[in-house]
Amino acid sequence: MAKKLDVLFAHNEEKAKAFLGRIEGKKPLFICTIATTETGKIPGLSAAGANPDFTDFTPPADAELLLLGKCKSIQGVPITPDGIPTPGLITMSALHLADIPVLVVNGGVKVKPQIPYVDLGGNSGRDIRTGDSVDNVEEVVERAKVLGQQLAKAADYLVIGESIPGGTTTALGVLSALGVEAEGKVSSTLPLNPHSLKSEVVRAGLKAAGEKFGSLKNNPIKAISCVGDPMMPALAGLVIGAVRQSPVLLAGGTQMTAVLAVISALDPIALCNVAVGTTRWVTKDKSSDITGIVRQFCDVPVLAADLDFEPSTYPGLRIYETGLVKEGVGAGGASIAAMAKSGVTKDQLLKEIERNYASLMSLK
Amino acid sequence: MAKKLDVLFAHNEEKAKAFLGRIEGKKPLFICTIATTETGKIPGLSAAGANPDFTDFTPPADAELLLLGKCKSIQGVPITPDGIPTPGLITMSALHLADIPVLVVNGGVKVKPQIPYVDLGGNSGRDIRTGDSVDNVEEVVERAKVLGQQLAKAADYLVIGESIPGGTTTALGVLSALGVEAEGKVSSTLPLNPHSLKSEVVRAGLKAAGEKFGSLKNNPIKAISCVGDPMMPALAGLVIGAVRQSPVLLAGGTQMTAVLAVISALDPIALCNVAVGTTRWVTKDKSSDITGIVRQFCDVPVLAADLDFEPSTYPGLRIYETGLVKEGVGAGGASIAAMAKSGVTKDQLLKEIERNYASLMSLK
Repeated sequence: MAKKLDVLFAHNEEKAKAFLGRIEGKKPLFICTIATTETGKIPGLSAAGANPDFTDFTPPADAELLLLGKCKSIQGVPITPDGIPTPGLITMSALHLADIPVLVVNGGVKVKPQIPYVDLGGNSGRDIRTGDSVDNVEEVVERAKVLGQQLAKAADYLVIGESIPGGTTTALGVLSALGVEAEGKVSSTLPLNPHSLKSEVVRAGLKAAGEKFGSLKNNPIKAISCVGDPMMPALAGLVIGAVRQSPVLLAGGTQMTAVLAVISALDPIALCNVAVGTTRWVTKDKSSDITGIVRQFCDVPVLAADLDFEPSTYPGLRIYETGLVKEGVGAGGASIAAMAKSGVTKDQLLKEIERNYASLMSLK
Repeated sequence: MAKKLDVLFAHNEEKAKAFLGRIEGKKPLFICTIATTETGKIPGLSAAGANPDFTDFTPPADAELLLLGKCKSIQGVPITPDGIPTPGLITMSALHLADIPVLVVNGGVKVKPQIPYVDLGGNSGRDIRTGDSVDNVEEVVERAKVLGQQLAKAADYLVIGESIPGGTTTALGVLSALGVEAEGKVSSTLPLNPHSLKSEVVRAGLKAAGEKFGSLKNNPIKAISCVGDPMMPALAGLVIGAVRQSPVLLAGGTQMTAVLAVISALDPIALCNVAVGTTRWVTKDKSSDITGIVRQFCDVPVLAADLDFEPSTYPGLRIYETGLVKEGVGAGGASIAAMAKSGVTKDQLLKEIERNYASLMSLK
């Protein structure tokens, strides 16, 4: 390694370093998987949109931001109810600095993005309290495998992120169904992590499905169908299809642990060539515990981009340091990929983020 | 060049050789663009399906064949009314031998393929005799440009083929609207090229649109909207988006000349990094004249895979030598790409095609 990259090793340091070594200087393809659910609209659960109904527009708008540098489905960019901009800003800045190509994959959205996207035959998800949240899980997994196989031949490695509001609650749902202790451990975009609401929603979902903690340990497809979201079959399939050909960096926070648990149940060997790439804000978060989830069922390494917005001149960015938003749209993994590909530093990245922030929020 | 490849230079030999030199040993991405139209169902016009109504299933089935090695939307593989198998067999064999990745792009189909595909917001086309054949042309071109930009970053170069029944008639339509003399020059899957029927259909389309030969010379978007097909905006956009980053091999016969004419009218500089890659069966065809079309408006080189099915043990393949089918699903361009990437010879390719033919037609 010619110089030290701004990447932290949050879990399984040895494997994390080896993974970083494997991707350094290589050419990745970034995949943004989008999905929406009615779960994401439960009041108080997600901040990925100015209000609950707006969450249908957040994933397509994030995807547009990455491909076009601006949104088409909404004015401006997605924001939290407090006006904090989408972490997609970090992702677009990282990908641009390192000239990393992007492909958008539709796991299942209500509002279609106004850009090219790969369709996998998935639909937007229902409220998990119905116990019947996702259609067509097995078929989407199969199609995503086929896509992952092809894309892994085209790029040196894949970086796969997500934009799905309410995704940590569905993550808790699937982790619980699979018997992984994750209550109080999943992350949140909100300043106060609504753990008890998430647990209540998941309990209602499992009950409605006639399931309980761990009862779907050997049936991850059904776990997603009952209490998961449409991002999960897309991501799990992509990883399983790709890893025999190339490494995969799962770009996200605690949501990715549910994807890991699904893969671990479907095809555990596939985890040998996978790492999670997130942000320092997730790994240092006191209201969640990503490594506490991962280590229960696998030794996949967790890397974190050492992002630091404290020096920013913009209060809207500095506020990330208070623990809001933290991650999303593959922000951490895209940053790691930009660092690994082109030696981008966290300072260069912050400058580019500030430039894009100012221009998109029309601050100059 | 270490050894002579089985590639012929059919037009603009100097540029053709230079293009081949640029792609030799490089890693391509093959894109199969699918589309359907009601034009393709006019009796006597196309043989890309066992009967006219079947043409809706040919493009999705071809795409499935490339990604899965078998079709899902139909039993067996697409055939002509005479039972000749789809040229997609050639394409899948070439891509497999050289381990070339595939992405399917949906320009606009009636029957969606049961595999992952990129959606560009296009619809299946109407009969061009209405003079109003394709929706949403400008938007599809724009989205395809965005996709082309990204894919050109991911691969060393792009090879872009098509599967659209009736495509030479819509090609004649757009070439005529743009003022290119193509009557009697477009190719056909049929043993007897139905030139007069094609001309009649195109004349009816131009009349219905209130246009005439050459009247849309400066409006290629409208030319496609009136008398074109949904493959064209997808391909033109992909090329324009990609060529500033990487070379593009347009994998097809005379249909590709309409795409070239559209690009020539939209963004002529984009043609500098483009070649047409087809089969020997197209370039030696006496009932069509691909170079006679191309040389009217550009100096894009034409390369041809020197395929020869004469030595085949299978009559269903030997019949290609009588001039049936000739090209489609990017067969010629995929063969050239396999030869350029891995030094695949025409003999090796025929062996692989025979193997796949026997297994898919259940001959052994």
